[in-house]
Amino acid sequence: MRQDSRNLYRGRVVTLNLETHQLPDGRQGQFEVIRHSGAAAALPILPDGRWVLVRQYRPAADGMVWEIPAGRLEPGEAPADCIVRELAEEIGYHPGRVEPLGLMHPALGYSDERLHLFVARELEPVPQALEEHEFLEVVPLPPTEALHLLAAGEVTDSKTQVALLLAAQRGLDRNE
Amino acid sequence: MRQDSRNLYRGRVVTLNLETHQLPDGRQGQFEVIRHSGAAAALPILPDGRWVLVRQYRPAADGMVWEIPAGRLEPGEAPADCIVRELAEEIGYHPGRVEPLGLMHPALGYSDERLHLFVARELEPVPQALEEHEFLEVVPLPPTEALHLLAAGEVTDSKTQVALLLAAQRGLDRNE
Repeated sequence: MRQDSRNLYRGRVVTLNLETHQLPDGRQGQFEVIRHSGAAAALPILPDGRWVLVRQYRPAADGMVWEIPAGRLEPGEAPADCIVRELAEEIGYHPGRVEPLGLMHPALGYSDERLHLFVARELEPVPQALEEHEFLEVVPLPPTEALHLLAAGEVTDSKTQVALLLAAQRGLDRNE
Repeated sequence: MRQDSRNLYRGRVVTLNLETHQLPDGRQGQFEVIRHSGAAAALPILPDGRWVLVRQYRPAADGMVWEIPAGRLEPGEAPADCIVRELAEEIGYHPGRVEPLGLMHPALGYSDERLHLFVARELEPVPQALEEHEFLEVVPLPPTEALHLLAAGEVTDSKTQVALLLAAQRGLDRNE
């Protein structure tokens, strides 16, 4: 239970607090907690069954990384609205349908980020509009190739791992 | 490519930098990046086939969360040594065998954390030694129950989702 919070840094993406919490046994502790606005991500499935991944430059990895499209929620924005907006901006598709796939806490040890996963279908091309400081390639792949990249250890991004594994578990690689 | 870095905060868990990176197309941008020492986590499999999960208090979730045992690497520590140490401290078992299960970046949008996933077997009871400010319950579960919790949306921690999904994909729920 949070009892006190002191802001250490407020930035564009990251708000860092030093918080005092009471543990369930009554002890108190101080914890560094990143407060994050939340995010949405989707596995986009093209009409021909291919999955749309991106190769994106990530400063934290100092290189290009395989990911599914994703973005941060704007203030008051619903996760499903966020991912519809992000799919247009990031990969240039408007989805006719988005279905929830799951919810994840990417880094619960120090961040309260909640990331909402979706599957996006009925994709129609629209103009792409990358944000400043984004650099990425849009790469549609047959599901078998995406799952092969995962099995080979080439996919290290947590939301992408979870989305691909859930999609495979639910048989989304076998149909449209 | 990182060109410059300014430290904003250096804490117990989190080191936050404001970094200047050159994108692959030559543009420059500033990014908030958490530099993290790395972590290790394991799915422990008991001799009777049950999986050992923990229910842990997490300030970032303001409550108890289902997780697999995990911890941060100490300076110079190998991931496999880290998880052997953490399994003793956190759940009171020494594994005779740890096998790599995968590598993940939990929150690549703002953190360089690399988390090494393992499967731990041949577990022998040893004294538990929780760290200060840790509060958790050790909960051995039949694999079907753990996978049911996941399917029901009760498991939201990313490393736990990935470990359970990979373990199910590799048939680790069906033997030991």
